[in-house]
Amino acid sequence: MSEEPSKAVRIGLLGRGTVGGAFADLLAERSGAVEAATGRRLEISGVLTRAEGDFDSILAGSDVLVELIGGTEPAREYVLAALRAGKPVVTANKQLLAQHGEELFEAAREAGVQLRFEAAVAGVIPIVRAIQESFGVTGITKVFGIVNGTTNFILTEMAASGASFEEVLARAQDLGYAEADPSDDVSGADAAAKMAILARLAFHTPVTLEEVSYEGIERIEPDDIAYARELGLSLKLLGVAERREGGVSVRVFPCFLYAGHPLAPVQGPFNAVMVEAPEITEVTMSGPGAGGLQTASAVLGDVVSVLNGDAPVHETREELPVIADVASSFYLHLEVSDRPGVLARVAQVLGDKEVSVKSVVQRGSGEEASLVMVLHECLESRFAEAIDAIDALDVLRAPPRAIRVIEEEFV
Amino acid sequence: MSEEPSKAVRIGLLGRGTVGGAFADLLAERSGAVEAATGRRLEISGVLTRAEGDFDSILAGSDVLVELIGGTEPAREYVLAALRAGKPVVTANKQLLAQHGEELFEAAREAGVQLRFEAAVAGVIPIVRAIQESFGVTGITKVFGIVNGTTNFILTEMAASGASFEEVLARAQDLGYAEADPSDDVSGADAAAKMAILARLAFHTPVTLEEVSYEGIERIEPDDIAYARELGLSLKLLGVAERREGGVSVRVFPCFLYAGHPLAPVQGPFNAVMVEAPEITEVTMSGPGAGGLQTASAVLGDVVSVLNGDAPVHETREELPVIADVASSFYLHLEVSDRPGVLARVAQVLGDKEVSVKSVVQRGSGEEASLVMVLHECLESRFAEAIDAIDALDVLRAPPRAIRVIEEEFV
Repeated sequence: MSEEPSKAVRIGLLGRGTVGGAFADLLAERSGAVEAATGRRLEISGVLTRAEGDFDSILAGSDVLVELIGGTEPAREYVLAALRAGKPVVTANKQLLAQHGEELFEAAREAGVQLRFEAAVAGVIPIVRAIQESFGVTGITKVFGIVNGTTNFILTEMAASGASFEEVLARAQDLGYAEADPSDDVSGADAAAKMAILARLAFHTPVTLEEVSYEGIERIEPDDIAYARELGLSLKLLGVAERREGGVSVRVFPCFLYAGHPLAPVQGPFNAVMVEAPEITEVTMSGPGAGGLQTASAVLGDVVSVLNGDAPVHETREELPVIADVASSFYLHLEVSDRPGVLARVAQVLGDKEVSVKSVVQRGSGEEASLVMVLHECLESRFAEAIDAIDALDVLRAPPRAIRVIEEEFV
Repeated sequence: MSEEPSKAVRIGLLGRGTVGGAFADLLAERSGAVEAATGRRLEISGVLTRAEGDFDSILAGSDVLVELIGGTEPAREYVLAALRAGKPVVTANKQLLAQHGEELFEAAREAGVQLRFEAAVAGVIPIVRAIQESFGVTGITKVFGIVNGTTNFILTEMAASGASFEEVLARAQDLGYAEADPSDDVSGADAAAKMAILARLAFHTPVTLEEVSYEGIERIEPDDIAYARELGLSLKLLGVAERREGGVSVRVFPCFLYAGHPLAPVQGPFNAVMVEAPEITEVTMSGPGAGGLQTASAVLGDVVSVLNGDAPVHETREELPVIADVASSFYLHLEVSDRPGVLARVAQVLGDKEVSVKSVVQRGSGEEASLVMVLHECLESRFAEAIDAIDALDVLRAPPRAIRVIEEEFV
C-alpha cells in the first residue's frame, strides 16, 4: 500500500462467476464513490479463472487480492501466498475461513496485513465487522440466527403453502434459491461453517468445523409447521453459538420461535443474526443472505476498508437540496356528525383531489359515527388540500386526524 | 498515538453522569479484553465535571478525549480544541454532531485525527459504523427507522393498555424511560437530530437540523391505535431520510406500519434502523436505543477502534472446550395408536425423566390420534432418554418427531 494517491490500486481478482462478475461491474459503477471515500482509484489488474490467467503474475501485479473462487483448494494456497507476500486479502469464502481460519489469521498477523471476509457470513449484513470492531471488546455471551437463506426460503414456503419439503425444494431450485445439489444447505452444513466463523470471532477461541453439530430440515413435516402455528410458533433453521459454563456450544438445528421473537418475522431468503452481551442487551441485524450483487457489495465494502486502514472521517461530497413535499400514504380518522351521505361526500372530495382510498371502515352511527380509512400514496400537499376541502364540507364533529402509513410490502 | 506499547493510553473523560460513570466502570471491567484487542492498556487520566477538573490540563494529559457532557456548549469548544491539538475524540453527543457536524468533521480532517460517535445515534446499534464503513461506497437511497426509545416505549404501552398519551407518559417517567421534561423526545426533536446525522453520513451532503421537519406523538389518540390495529397496522415514530429526485428528504413523523414490515415488531425502548440501496436491498439493525451501560459500551467500542486504526486481525485469546450436551426446549409430535390412557402414560414417562410439559394438544382420535406438545427446557441428553422411554411404551404408530423451541420472551 505504498503507492502515491494518484496511482491506481491494483486489484487481483480470483474468480469471475456470479459474484466475481458482479464485483467487477459494481467496482466500475461505484468508482466515483470509491475515489471519494479512499482518495484512490481502483482497477482490476488481473483476473484468474479456470480458463485463463496465471496466479503468480496476477499476485505480482496487484496491491490487494480478492478471492472469489470458493472451495478450500487452491483458494487456501492463493490466500496464504498473498498474505505472505504482504498483500491484503478480501474473500467471501466461508469454507476457507471455517476450515483454515487459524492458519490464515496467523499468516495475516505475521505479515501485518488485513484479511477481511464480511461476505463469508450472512451476505451483506455487516455482522463480521460488528463482532470484530463494534463489539470487539464486548463480553459476548451468544451469537445466533438464521444464516442460510435457502433453508429459510424453503421453511417460509412450507409454512405459507402447506406443501412438503420435497415439493418446496423443487420450487426453490426453479427460482434459483436452491442449488442443483442442495445438500450443503438443507443439511445445515453451510450454516455450520458460518457459525464456526462467528463463534471464533465472538469468543476469541478456535472452533473447528468438526466441533459444530448440525441438523438439517430434510425431515420437517408440513403438519408440524401447521400444528405449531396454532401454538403461535414459526420454524427457522437456527445457528447458535453460546458461551456455556466451562466452554462454548456451537450448533445448527431447526427450531420453533414464538411470534414475539425478533427472528420470527425473518422471511424468505433473508438472514438475521443476533448478538447478546450484558452491556449491549441484544442487537439484531437482518438483510439478504446471498445474491451476487449483494455479496459483491460486501466484498467492495471490505476492499474500501482495507484501503482506508484508519477510520474514515466524514466529508461532504454533494450539496443536495432538502425537499419538503413528498408522497405519503395516510390513515385518516373523521368524526362525522351526520352519517347518511357523508361517506359519499368525503369520497367525492378525495376523488376530486385524486387521493384514492385503499380501505375504509365506518364505526358507530348518528352522533357517534366515525370514518376510518387508509389512503393510497399521494403528494402531501395534495392530501392537505383534500383535508381542507373535507373540513369545508362542515360534516366533521372534530378536527380530522391523519397519520402516515408505510404501505410497501416487504419480503 | 506515538506511545510505546507498554505505556498506557490516557483517556481524558469529560462528564461523569450516567454514561460517564458506566463508561469508567466498563473500561475497568473489560480492561483485559481491551488489552487483547489493542495491545494497549487504557487509563482515565483526568475527569472533568461541573464540580472539578480543568479542561486544558485534562487535554494536555490525555491521548484520547471522550466527551460525555452533552449539549452544544462547552462541548463544541472542547471537542474542537482536542481535534485541533491532534487528539482523537469519541463522543455520544447527538446535538453536537447534528448542529456543528460540518465544523467538527472539518477540524478532524484538517488535523488528520479520528472523530467517532457511534453512541450518538441508536445507542448500541452499530449504524454509524455500518453507514460510514460497511456501506461507505454504497449508493444508499434511504435510511429510516425508530431512533427514539422513549416514544417507542410510549406507543408500545398505549397499544398494549389502551391508555392515553398523558397516562403512559407519566408511567414512562416513573420507570425512567422518559425524562422529567420529555418535550425533546415526544416532539420528535431528538429523533430529528439523529436523522440529520444519519442523512449527512448516508448521502454525503450537509443536512442541518433546521432542514429536518418533525412531528411528535403528543396528539395520538388511543382509539386511532386501536382502530388501526384492526386494519393490521401498528404505530411507530419514524425518522426517514431519502434520496429524492433532485435532493433529499429528511423527516420525523408518527406512522402506521403493516404487520409484515421489519420495523413493526420493534417494541418498548428498542431502536431499529433500516438502510436501503440497490446493491444491498435492505439491511435492518435493531437493539437498545439508550441506557447508560449500552451507551457506554458503544463509546468503548469507538475508543478501541480509534486505537486500532487499522482493522483488527482475529487472534485466539482462549482455548474454550466445545460443549455438546446443553439444555433445550422441545416441540414433540407423537402419532399414537391407542388414545385412551396414552397421554397419561406419556406424561408419566416425561415426569419420571423430569421433563415438564408447557402445553399439549390432542388431535384426531383412534388410529388417527396425535399428541402435540411443547416441553420446558431440559438437558438434551435427558430429553433423548425420555424419548427412548416413550418409544419403549409401544404406543407410537410412527417415530416421534422432536424440534427445538426457543422459549424465551423478548422485549
